[in-house]
Amino acid sequence: MDHEPLVRRAAGWNWEGVDVLRYKEEGAAPFRDVTRQVLFEPPGLGVQLRYFEVAAGGHTTLERHEHVHAVMVVRGRGRCLVGDRAWDLAERDLVNVPPMTWHQFHAAADAPLGFLCLVSSERDRPQLPTPDEAQAVSAPLRG
Amino acid sequence: MDHEPLVRRAAGWNWEGVDVLRYKEEGAAPFRDVTRQVLFEPPGLGVQLRYFEVAAGGHTTLERHEHVHAVMVVRGRGRCLVGDRAWDLAERDLVNVPPMTWHQFHAAADAPLGFLCLVSSERDRPQLPTPDEAQAVSAPLRG
Repeated sequence: MDHEPLVRRAAGWNWEGVDVLRYKEEGAAPFRDVTRQVLFEPPGLGVQLRYFEVAAGGHTTLERHEHVHAVMVVRGRGRCLVGDRAWDLAERDLVNVPPMTWHQFHAAADAPLGFLCLVSSERDRPQLPTPDEAQAVSAPLRG
Repeated sequence: MDHEPLVRRAAGWNWEGVDVLRYKEEGAAPFRDVTRQVLFEPPGLGVQLRYFEVAAGGHTTLERHEHVHAVMVVRGRGRCLVGDRAWDLAERDLVNVPPMTWHQFHAAADAPLGFLCLVSSERDRPQLPTPDEAQAVSAPLRG
């Protein structure tokens, strides 16, 4: 990341000097069409602010962990699962993911879902559901 | 703030259950037409993500302090001072304010400036310039 005070937006949802990263290692967990960019990791704060973009029809991994997420939708539309409920999402909606709570973000079929995600810099490893658990846990998304 | 996982956007740049606060106590420091909303203060992280909106023609206080700011412009246009330089700002630009660095955010004359600001929950008290210092420090904004 640039160490100048200003980091300029670039074309689309990109920033000068900010790498567009894989969401996760390929094959590490189920996901589809997600990118990750680290916008801020301010010295001394112990947190990161990242920008994730899920392409139309894509989704993040269904998972849970001790660390919390604070999410702000800034682009497009989609739907999220948090615990035993699902919500439609649009720009500027805020989502709090508490510790050890199953969660997943889906873009709409015809629009991307871009969101900021504030997290601790030190994070525990996500837990994945078994296939049977995944079916049960993700039921609200199909409801 | 709501304790449901989802906090919905409301009309304009407001959120359901999120109070629109004064930027500072009236008379505490020079500023003009600024509001503040605390969007997130996730448990255990020790940080806040706030949304500030400076109305057209308005500005934040010229100040410096030990705590850092990580700022993302999300609405409108303006200009900022950080240290001895000034930059024009537009949506999605990122600004890092290092410790003890003079800074100020101005909205354009004809557009508001809305930005997210990530900070530590515990912050030292801002220092204000004397009138003579303010003239010198703010020179890049007039350049």
